[in-house]
Amino acid sequence: MTAVVNHEDSLALDERGRKLLFTEARTANTFTEEPVTEEQLRAVYELTKFAPTSANTQPLRVLYVHKGEARDRLVPHMAGANGPKTAAAPVVAILAADLGFHEHIPTVFPIRPEMKDTFEANPGAREQHARFNATLQAGYFLLGVRAAGLSAGPMSGFDAEGVDREFFADGRLKSILVVNIGHPGEGAFFDRLPRLDYDQVVQHI
Amino acid sequence: MTAVVNHEDSLALDERGRKLLFTEARTANTFTEEPVTEEQLRAVYELTKFAPTSANTQPLRVLYVHKGEARDRLVPHMAGANGPKTAAAPVVAILAADLGFHEHIPTVFPIRPEMKDTFEANPGAREQHARFNATLQAGYFLLGVRAAGLSAGPMSGFDAEGVDREFFADGRLKSILVVNIGHPGEGAFFDRLPRLDYDQVVQHI
Repeated sequence: MTAVVNHEDSLALDERGRKLLFTEARTANTFTEEPVTEEQLRAVYELTKFAPTSANTQPLRVLYVHKGEARDRLVPHMAGANGPKTAAAPVVAILAADLGFHEHIPTVFPIRPEMKDTFEANPGAREQHARFNATLQAGYFLLGVRAAGLSAGPMSGFDAEGVDREFFADGRLKSILVVNIGHPGEGAFFDRLPRLDYDQVVQHI
Repeated sequence: MTAVVNHEDSLALDERGRKLLFTEARTANTFTEEPVTEEQLRAVYELTKFAPTSANTQPLRVLYVHKGEARDRLVPHMAGANGPKTAAAPVVAILAADLGFHEHIPTVFPIRPEMKDTFEANPGAREQHARFNATLQAGYFLLGVRAAGLSAGPMSGFDAEGVDREFFADGRLKSILVVNIGHPGEGAFFDRLPRLDYDQVVQHI
Protein backbone atom coordinates (compact mmCIF):
# COMPACT_ATOMS: atom_id res chain seq x y z
CA MET A 1 0.00 0.00 0.00
CA THR A 2 2.80 2.40 0.85
CA ALA A 3 4.13 2.04 -2.69
CA VAL A 4 1.40 4.34 -3.98
CA VAL A 5 1.83 7.00 -1.29
CA ASN A 6 3.64 10.19 -2.26
CA HIS A 7 5.92 10.48 0.74
CA GLU A 8 6.46 14.17 0.13
CA ASP A 9 2.84 14.77 1.12
CA SER A 10 3.84 13.79 4.65
CA LEU A 11 6.45 16.54 4.92
CA ALA A 12 6.03 20.04 6.34
CA LEU A 13 9.21 21.28 4.63
CA ASP A 14 8.24 22.64 1.22
CA GLU A 15 9.61 21.44 -2.10
CA ARG A 16 12.16 24.21 -2.42
CA GLY A 17 13.56 23.45 1.02
CA ARG A 18 13.62 19.73 0.33
CA LYS A 19 15.53 20.23 -2.90
CA LEU A 20 17.94 22.74 -1.38
CA LEU A 21 18.94 20.60 1.61
CA PHE A 22 18.36 17.01 0.51
CA THR A 23 16.87 15.81 -2.75
CA GLU A 24 18.79 17.96 -5.23
CA ALA A 25 21.78 18.94 -3.09
CA ARG A 26 24.98 17.19 -4.08
CA THR A 27 28.54 16.90 -2.84
CA ALA A 28 30.67 19.25 -4.97
CA ASN A 29 34.07 18.19 -6.27
CA THR A 30 34.95 21.39 -8.14
CA PHE A 31 34.12 25.03 -7.42
CA THR A 32 33.93 28.33 -9.29
CA GLU A 33 36.14 31.27 -8.32
CA GLU A 34 33.18 33.00 -6.67
CA PRO A 35 34.21 33.68 -3.09
CA VAL A 36 32.37 32.55 0.03
CA THR A 37 31.66 35.58 2.19
CA GLU A 38 32.19 36.00 5.91
CA GLU A 39 28.49 36.87 6.13
CA GLN A 40 27.56 33.50 4.63
CA LEU A 41 29.78 31.64 7.09
CA ARG A 42 28.29 33.57 9.99
CA ALA A 43 24.79 32.84 8.70
CA VAL A 44 25.57 29.10 8.62
CA TYR A 45 26.58 29.28 12.27
CA GLU A 46 23.71 31.48 13.43
CA LEU A 47 21.30 28.98 11.83
CA THR A 48 22.81 25.66 12.85
CA LYS A 49 23.78 26.63 16.39
CA PHE A 50 20.18 25.93 17.44
CA ALA A 51 20.21 22.22 16.56
CA PRO A 52 20.44 19.93 19.59
CA THR A 53 23.42 18.44 21.42
CA SER A 54 23.54 16.35 24.59
CA ALA A 55 23.22 18.64 27.61
CA ASN A 56 23.55 21.56 25.17
CA THR A 57 27.33 21.12 25.19
CA GLN A 58 27.99 22.19 21.56
CA PRO A 59 31.52 20.76 21.24
CA LEU A 60 31.94 21.43 17.49
CA ARG A 61 34.64 23.92 16.55
CA VAL A 62 35.27 25.22 13.02
CA LEU A 63 38.60 26.37 11.62
CA TYR A 64 38.21 28.04 8.23
CA VAL A 65 41.43 27.62 6.27
CA HIS A 66 41.87 30.23 3.56
CA LYS A 67 44.12 30.12 0.51
CA GLY A 68 47.77 30.86 1.08
CA GLU A 69 50.18 29.66 3.71
CA ALA A 70 47.51 28.06 5.92
CA ARG A 71 45.95 26.13 3.05
CA ASP A 72 49.37 24.99 1.92
CA ARG A 73 49.89 23.42 5.35
CA LEU A 74 46.59 21.51 5.12
CA VAL A 75 46.76 20.05 1.61
CA PRO A 76 49.60 17.54 2.24
CA HIS A 77 47.48 15.85 4.92
CA MET A 78 44.61 15.14 2.52
CA ALA A 79 44.38 11.67 0.95
CA GLY A 80 44.77 11.17 -2.79
CA ALA A 81 42.34 13.18 -4.91
CA ASN A 82 41.22 15.15 -1.86
CA GLY A 83 44.49 17.11 -2.02
CA PRO A 84 43.88 19.02 -5.27
CA LYS A 85 40.21 19.54 -4.37
CA THR A 86 41.19 21.04 -1.04
CA ALA A 87 43.86 23.23 -2.66
CA ALA A 88 41.34 24.70 -5.10
CA ALA A 89 38.22 25.25 -2.95
CA PRO A 90 37.27 28.88 -2.15
CA VAL A 91 37.20 28.07 1.55
CA VAL A 92 37.90 24.91 3.54
CA ALA A 93 36.56 24.12 7.00
CA ILE A 94 38.30 21.81 9.43
CA LEU A 95 35.55 20.55 11.74
CA ALA A 96 36.88 19.55 15.14
CA ALA A 97 35.69 18.27 18.52
CA ASP A 98 36.70 20.44 21.49
CA LEU A 99 37.80 18.14 24.32
CA GLY A 100 37.58 21.19 26.58
CA PHE A 101 33.88 21.79 25.83
CA HIS A 102 33.03 21.16 29.47
CA GLU A 103 34.49 24.50 30.54
CA HIS A 104 31.35 26.11 29.08
CA ILE A 105 28.88 23.86 30.96
CA PRO A 106 28.08 26.35 33.78
CA THR A 107 27.00 28.78 31.04
CA VAL A 108 25.36 26.50 28.47
CA PHE A 109 23.77 24.00 30.90
CA PRO A 110 23.23 26.01 34.08
CA ILE A 111 20.74 23.50 35.46
CA ARG A 112 23.61 21.05 36.08
CA PRO A 113 26.86 23.03 36.42
CA GLU A 114 28.47 20.15 38.33
CA MET A 115 28.67 18.21 35.03
CA LYS A 116 31.76 20.31 34.34
CA ASP A 117 33.62 18.61 37.19
CA THR A 118 32.32 15.16 36.27
CA PHE A 119 33.72 15.56 32.75
CA GLU A 120 36.95 17.08 34.07
CA ALA A 121 37.52 13.91 36.08
CA ASN A 122 36.69 11.56 33.18
CA PRO A 123 38.78 12.35 30.09
CA GLY A 124 37.62 9.17 28.33
CA ALA A 125 33.92 9.93 28.70
CA ARG A 126 34.68 13.54 27.83
CA GLU A 127 36.37 12.67 24.53
CA GLN A 128 33.58 10.26 23.60
CA HIS A 129 30.96 12.93 24.37
CA ALA A 130 32.91 15.56 22.43
CA ARG A 131 33.40 13.41 19.35
CA PHE A 132 29.82 12.10 19.27
CA ASN A 133 28.16 15.47 19.65
CA ALA A 134 30.58 17.30 17.36
CA THR A 135 29.78 14.69 14.71
CA LEU A 136 26.03 15.26 15.12
CA GLN A 137 26.80 18.95 14.69
CA ALA A 138 28.89 18.20 11.60
CA GLY A 139 25.72 16.75 10.08
CA TYR A 140 23.86 19.96 10.91
CA PHE A 141 26.76 22.00 9.52
CA LEU A 142 26.69 20.27 6.13
CA LEU A 143 22.96 20.95 5.79
CA GLY A 144 23.58 24.52 6.99
CA VAL A 145 26.10 25.11 4.22
CA ARG A 146 23.41 24.01 1.77
CA ALA A 147 20.86 26.27 3.50
CA ALA A 148 23.19 29.17 2.64
CA GLY A 149 22.96 28.25 -1.04
CA LEU A 150 26.49 26.87 -1.07
CA SER A 151 27.80 23.42 -1.93
CA ALA A 152 29.82 21.32 0.49
CA GLY A 153 32.45 18.71 -0.26
CA PRO A 154 32.91 16.77 2.98
CA MET A 155 35.99 14.53 3.20
CA SER A 156 37.01 12.03 5.84
CA GLY A 157 39.97 10.92 3.76
CA PHE A 158 42.76 12.80 5.54
CA ASP A 159 45.45 12.20 8.16
CA ALA A 160 43.66 13.39 11.29
CA GLU A 161 46.74 13.05 13.49
CA GLY A 162 48.77 15.07 11.02
CA VAL A 163 46.12 17.78 10.80
CA ASP A 164 45.89 17.91 14.59
CA ARG A 165 49.67 18.24 14.97
CA GLU A 166 49.73 20.99 12.34
CA PHE A 167 46.73 23.05 13.47
CA PHE A 168 45.79 21.95 17.00
CA ALA A 169 49.16 21.33 18.63
CA ASP A 170 47.93 21.83 22.20
CA GLY A 171 45.76 18.70 21.90
CA ARG A 172 42.46 20.29 22.86
CA LEU A 173 40.83 20.08 19.42
CA LYS A 174 40.54 16.84 17.43
CA SER A 175 39.73 17.09 13.71
CA ILE A 176 36.79 14.96 12.57
CA LEU A 177 35.96 16.14 9.03
CA VAL A 178 37.33 18.49 6.37
CA VAL A 179 34.79 20.30 4.20
CA ASN A 180 35.39 22.17 0.95
CA ILE A 181 32.85 24.96 0.47
CA GLY A 182 31.87 27.14 -2.47
CA HIS A 183 29.73 27.38 -5.57
CA PRO A 184 29.82 24.26 -7.76
CA GLY A 185 32.10 24.49 -10.78
CA GLU A 186 32.33 22.62 -14.06
CA GLY A 187 31.88 18.88 -13.62
CA ALA A 188 31.29 19.41 -9.89
CA PHE A 189 28.94 16.48 -9.44
CA PHE A 190 29.50 12.77 -9.89
CA ASP A 191 26.46 10.65 -10.78
CA ARG A 192 24.16 10.11 -7.83
CA LEU A 193 25.04 6.83 -6.14
CA PRO A 194 22.36 4.36 -4.99
CA ARG A 195 20.74 4.72 -1.59
CA LEU A 196 19.65 1.79 0.56
CA ASP A 197 15.93 0.98 0.54
CA TYR A 198 13.75 1.85 3.52
CA ASP A 199 13.38 -1.83 4.36
CA GLN A 200 17.16 -2.30 4.44
CA VAL A 201 17.54 0.47 7.02
CA VAL A 202 14.36 0.62 9.08
CA GLN A 203 12.66 -1.99 11.25
CA HIS A 204 9.60 -1.80 13.48
CA ILE A 205 8.94 -3.77 16.65
CA MET B 1 30.67 45.70 10.94
CA THR B 2 29.08 42.28 10.97
CA ALA B 3 26.98 43.29 13.96
CA VAL B 4 24.64 45.24 11.68
CA VAL B 5 24.29 42.51 9.05
CA ASN B 6 21.07 40.48 9.08
CA HIS B 7 22.59 37.02 8.70
CA GLU B 8 19.30 35.61 7.43
CA ASP B 9 19.79 37.63 4.25
CA SER B 10 22.71 35.34 3.45
CA LEU B 11 20.55 32.22 3.48
CA ALA B 12 18.80 30.53 0.57
CA LEU B 13 16.50 28.57 2.88
CA ASP B 14 13.37 30.63 3.45
CA GLU B 15 12.08 31.78 6.82
CA ARG B 16 9.53 28.99 7.15
CA GLY B 17 12.18 26.36 6.52
CA ARG B 18 14.62 28.03 8.92
CA LYS B 19 12.00 28.09 11.68
CA LEU B 20 10.85 24.53 11.01
CA LEU B 21 14.30 22.96 11.12
CA PHE B 22 16.41 25.26 13.27
CA THR B 23 15.39 28.57 14.79
CA GLU B 24 11.98 27.65 16.25
CA ALA B 25 12.36 23.87 16.43
CA ARG B 26 12.77 22.55 19.96
CA THR B 27 13.53 19.28 21.68
CA ALA B 28 10.20 17.95 22.98
CA ASN B 29 9.91 16.40 26.44
CA THR B 30 6.19 15.57 26.33
CA PHE B 31 3.92 14.52 23.46
CA THR B 32 0.22 14.46 22.65
CA GLU B 33 -1.62 11.19 21.96
CA GLU B 34 -1.64 11.98 18.22
CA PRO B 35 0.04 9.04 16.51
CA VAL B 36 3.04 9.20 14.20
CA THR B 37 2.15 7.50 10.92
CA GLU B 38 4.15 4.97 8.96
CA GLU B 39 3.91 7.39 6.02
CA GLN B 40 5.63 10.10 8.05
CA LEU B 41 8.44 7.76 9.09
CA ARG B 42 8.92 6.67 5.49
CA ALA B 43 8.95 10.30 4.38
CA VAL B 44 11.71 11.08 6.90
CA TYR B 45 13.82 8.30 5.42
CA GLU B 46 13.08 9.11 1.77
CA LEU B 47 14.19 12.70 2.45
CA THR B 48 17.25 12.19 4.61
CA LYS B 49 18.69 9.21 2.72
CA PHE B 50 20.19 11.66 0.23
CA ALA B 51 22.48 13.44 2.70
CA PRO B 52 26.15 12.48 2.36
CA THR B 53 28.21 9.76 4.04
CA SER B 54 31.84 8.72 3.45
CA ALA B 55 32.01 6.54 0.34
CA ASN B 56 28.18 6.54 0.36
CA THR B 57 28.24 3.80 3.00
CA GLN B 58 25.04 4.83 4.87
CA PRO B 59 25.66 2.81 8.06
CA LEU B 60 22.72 4.23 10.06
CA ARG B 61 19.97 1.77 10.98
CA VAL B 62 16.70 2.71 12.68
CA LEU B 63 14.64 0.48 14.96
CA TYR B 64 11.23 1.97 15.73
CA VAL B 65 10.05 0.70 19.10
CA HIS B 66 6.28 0.87 19.50
CA LYS B 67 4.24 0.80 22.69
CA GLY B 68 3.73 -2.57 24.30
CA GLU B 69 6.12 -5.38 24.99
CA ALA B 70 8.99 -3.93 22.92
CA ARG B 71 8.76 -0.50 24.56
CA ASP B 72 8.64 -2.14 27.98
CA ARG B 73 11.99 -3.79 27.22
CA LEU B 74 13.57 -0.44 26.27
CA VAL B 75 12.44 1.80 29.12
CA PRO B 76 14.54 0.21 31.91
CA HIS B 77 17.73 1.01 29.94
CA MET B 78 16.97 4.74 29.86
CA ALA B 79 18.66 7.01 32.43
CA GLY B 80 16.64 8.88 35.05
CA ALA B 81 13.94 11.13 33.62
CA ASN B 82 14.46 9.67 30.14
CA GLY B 83 12.58 6.53 31.26
CA PRO B 84 9.09 8.03 31.69
CA LYS B 85 9.57 10.20 28.57
CA THR B 86 10.47 7.12 26.53
CA ALA B 87 7.53 5.16 27.97
CA ALA B 88 5.06 7.88 26.95
CA ALA B 89 6.26 8.91 23.47
CA PRO B 90 4.06 7.91 20.49
CA VAL B 91 7.06 6.31 18.80
CA VAL B 92 10.68 5.85 19.80
CA ALA B 93 13.60 5.31 17.43
CA ILE B 94 16.78 3.51 18.41
CA LEU B 95 19.44 4.84 16.04
CA ALA B 96 22.27 2.39 15.53
CA ALA B 97 25.49 1.96 13.56
CA ASP B 98 25.63 -1.18 11.39
CA LEU B 99 29.10 -2.71 11.74
CA GLY B 100 28.22 -4.83 8.70
CA PHE B 101 27.58 -1.82 6.46
CA HIS B 102 30.46 -2.87 4.21
CA GLU B 103 28.44 -5.75 2.77
CA HIS B 104 26.55 -3.15 0.72
CA ILE B 105 29.66 -1.45 -0.70
CA PRO B 106 29.61 -3.23 -4.10
CA THR B 107 26.09 -1.80 -4.55
CA VAL B 108 26.35 1.63 -2.95
CA PHE B 109 29.94 2.47 -3.98
CA PRO B 110 30.46 0.45 -7.18
CA ILE B 111 33.48 2.53 -8.21
CA ARG B 112 35.49 0.88 -5.41
CA PRO B 113 33.93 -2.51 -4.59
CA GLU B 114 37.22 -3.72 -3.09
CA MET B 115 36.61 -1.43 -0.10
CA LYS B 116 34.29 -4.18 1.14
CA ASP B 117 37.26 -6.51 1.63
CA THR B 118 39.43 -3.79 3.15
CA PHE B 119 36.79 -3.13 5.79
CA GLU B 120 36.19 -6.87 6.30
CA ALA B 121 39.85 -7.23 7.23
CA ASN B 122 39.87 -4.20 9.57
CA PRO B 123 37.14 -4.44 12.21
CA GLY B 124 38.55 -1.48 14.15
CA ALA B 125 38.50 0.88 11.18
CA ARG B 126 35.11 -0.53 10.23
CA GLU B 127 33.56 0.24 13.60
CA GLN B 128 35.05 3.74 13.63
CA HIS B 129 33.70 4.39 10.12
CA ALA B 130 30.27 2.98 11.04
CA ARG B 131 29.93 5.01 14.23
CA PHE B 132 31.17 8.27 12.69
CA ASN B 133 28.96 8.14 9.62
CA ALA B 134 25.90 6.83 11.48
CA THR B 135 26.29 9.79 13.84
CA LEU B 136 26.43 12.24 10.92
CA GLN B 137 23.24 10.57 9.68
CA ALA B 138 21.70 10.86 13.15
CA GLY B 139 22.11 14.62 12.74
CA TYR B 140 20.32 14.46 9.38
CA PHE B 141 17.63 12.24 10.93
CA LEU B 142 16.80 14.72 13.71
CA LEU B 143 16.37 17.51 11.16
CA GLY B 144 14.36 15.12 8.96
CA VAL B 145 11.92 14.45 11.82
CA ARG B 146 11.44 18.20 12.06
CA ALA B 147 11.00 18.43 8.28
CA ALA B 148 8.05 16.06 8.68
CA GLY B 149 6.43 18.52 11.07
CA LEU B 150 7.18 16.33 14.08
CA SER B 151 9.18 17.02 17.23
CA ALA B 152 12.16 14.94 18.27
CA GLY B 153 13.45 14.27 21.75
CA PRO B 154 16.98 12.87 21.28
CA MET B 155 18.59 11.21 24.30
CA SER B 156 22.11 9.92 24.80
CA GLY B 157 21.39 9.15 28.45
CA PHE B 158 20.83 5.39 28.23
CA ASP B 159 22.74 2.15 28.80
CA ALA B 160 23.97 1.42 25.28
CA GLU B 161 25.38 -1.98 26.18
CA GLY B 162 22.10 -2.94 27.79
CA VAL B 163 20.10 -1.77 24.77
CA ASP B 164 22.42 -3.65 22.44
CA ARG B 165 22.09 -6.86 24.46
CA GLU B 166 18.31 -6.52 24.50
CA PHE B 167 17.70 -5.55 20.87
CA PHE B 168 20.87 -6.30 18.88
CA ALA B 169 22.09 -9.52 20.46
CA ASP B 170 24.09 -10.66 17.41
CA GLY B 171 26.50 -7.72 17.86
CA ARG B 172 26.15 -6.27 14.36
CA LEU B 173 24.25 -3.10 15.37
CA LYS B 174 25.49 -0.67 18.04
CA SER B 175 23.00 1.84 19.46
CA ILE B 176 24.15 5.47 19.36
CA LEU B 177 21.05 7.57 20.18
CA VAL B 178 17.45 7.06 21.29
CA VAL B 179 14.89 9.53 19.91
CA ASN B 180 11.33 10.13 21.12
CA ILE B 181 9.09 11.32 18.27
CA GLY B 182 5.64 12.85 18.16
CA HIS B 183 3.65 16.06 18.39
CA PRO B 184 4.65 18.26 21.33
CA GLY B 185 2.34 18.05 24.35
CA GLU B 186 1.68 20.29 27.32
CA GLY B 187 4.87 21.73 28.79
CA ALA B 188 6.89 20.01 26.05
CA PHE B 189 9.62 22.62 25.86
CA PHE B 190 12.12 23.76 28.45
CA ASP B 191 13.44 27.32 28.13
CA ARG B 192 15.92 27.72 25.29
CA LEU B 193 19.46 27.33 26.66
CA PRO B 194 22.29 29.66 25.60
CA ARG B 195 24.31 28.96 22.50
CA LEU B 196 28.01 29.72 22.16
CA ASP B 197 28.93 32.87 20.23
CA TYR B 198 30.34 32.64 16.72
CA ASP B 199 33.72 33.81 17.98
CA GLN B 200 33.83 31.03 20.58
CA VAL B 201 33.31 28.38 17.92
CA VAL B 202 34.78 29.67 14.67
CA GLN B 203 38.29 30.75 13.74
CA HIS B 204 39.80 31.84 10.45
CA ILE B 205 43.38 31.37 9.30
